[in-house]
Amino acid sequence: MLIYGKNVAKEILKKKKKIRKIYLQENFSDKEINSLIEKSNLEVEILKKQKLDNLSNGNHQGIILDIPDYKYKQLAEIIKEEINFIVILDHLEDPHNLGAIIRTCEAAGVDAIILPKDRQVQINSTVMKTSVGTLDQVNIVSVTNISNTIKELKDNGFWIVGTSLNNSVDYRSVDYSGKIALVIGNEGSGMSKLVEQNCDYIVKIPMYGTTNSLNASVAAGIMIYEIIRDRK
Amino acid sequence: MLIYGKNVAKEILKKKKKIRKIYLQENFSDKEINSLIEKSNLEVEILKKQKLDNLSNGNHQGIILDIPDYKYKQLAEIIKEEINFIVILDHLEDPHNLGAIIRTCEAAGVDAIILPKDRQVQINSTVMKTSVGTLDQVNIVSVTNISNTIKELKDNGFWIVGTSLNNSVDYRSVDYSGKIALVIGNEGSGMSKLVEQNCDYIVKIPMYGTTNSLNASVAAGIMIYEIIRDRK
Repeated sequence: MLIYGKNVAKEILKKKKKIRKIYLQENFSDKEINSLIEKSNLEVEILKKQKLDNLSNGNHQGIILDIPDYKYKQLAEIIKEEINFIVILDHLEDPHNLGAIIRTCEAAGVDAIILPKDRQVQINSTVMKTSVGTLDQVNIVSVTNISNTIKELKDNGFWIVGTSLNNSVDYRSVDYSGKIALVIGNEGSGMSKLVEQNCDYIVKIPMYGTTNSLNASVAAGIMIYEIIRDRK
Repeated sequence: MLIYGKNVAKEILKKKKKIRKIYLQENFSDKEINSLIEKSNLEVEILKKQKLDNLSNGNHQGIILDIPDYKYKQLAEIIKEEINFIVILDHLEDPHNLGAIIRTCEAAGVDAIILPKDRQVQINSTVMKTSVGTLDQVNIVSVTNISNTIKELKDNGFWIVGTSLNNSVDYRSVDYSGKIALVIGNEGSGMSKLVEQNCDYIVKIPMYGTTNSLNASVAAGIMIYEIIRDRK
């Protein structure tokens, strides 16, 4: 996986995470990063800006690191532990949202995040950046089929809570004291039909303007803090 | 102001907002947009991709619109109305955050957003995109000095609520039934010292992990919905 930008690069170099290779722009200069690279003894390739542009197709600020792909956990590993709050992402698209949700989950003490393998933004450079160092502190599980996962969670005593404007109750009216799996739907289309049918509770955050939805990471934040409200 | 990308362009064309000029990439083709442009009778300039890249320095998807700058409101206009919930942005940097906060404010029925003229991200193309059509529904006020504005709001009966980890109380413990102005601090450094000193309440959202802050728009969402919790 290629990750880029000075801040994320600095974080990875400081944490001494595994780095396969470093690509630097020919005139790259950042005192702190240069010193970290010198100490690291890692392979460095100097490239023209155009080459870095092609590799990153984004704002690389002169540095790209090639690091091992993010290692997702397995559901079985997680489920056997003593856990009671999971967040399920139902095909999110925006890496800023995923990063911000990871950060909120880490802050709120959510036990695990579950996301589907396909049609879902995965852990990438932007996610790393927007999750500001919390990525390593959260359990992130990748699954092939969310509906099957939800059934498995139900068998393990979880109540499934989804958000939707239709057929839903006020988010403040539900008792969240049990084991909860909160589903956050896609930014445009919300939860998928099958997932919605499997929810034990469908709740809505009331809205008083013209818009009928909040940014996905904002909605997730409000719901997550509502669920832990009476727990902590 | 130049705004770019198909979605925002479509929205502006549909709403028949004032457009000075349209810049299109030479091979641009989008059935809906092309038809909207034809009907609009607006001046169109066809440019090479490189020219559009230079104008937008971002992902323009082949279309750039030149529209009048966003027209901020004046504090005096707002304050004379019957309002009781204001959000003050203390030098935010990230347009995604500003856009998401505008969207949340519109949804929650916040009466006005106040932001400083300098060292603060202003309404731009990214903000338009992330606020998904809510921008026109919210009062946004631009001021030269936030501390002076806070004093004026206090004189008008507002309680000033800021968020910080230091010298703060749990965000659930405050009575928000009066006229409230909520301050959201900068993404990196939080509220400025002078603003913090002028707060009537400083609250914190409790965190249980390693991070000591949430994404600014997520924190704003949690606080805004806490403040309207007992109002609506």
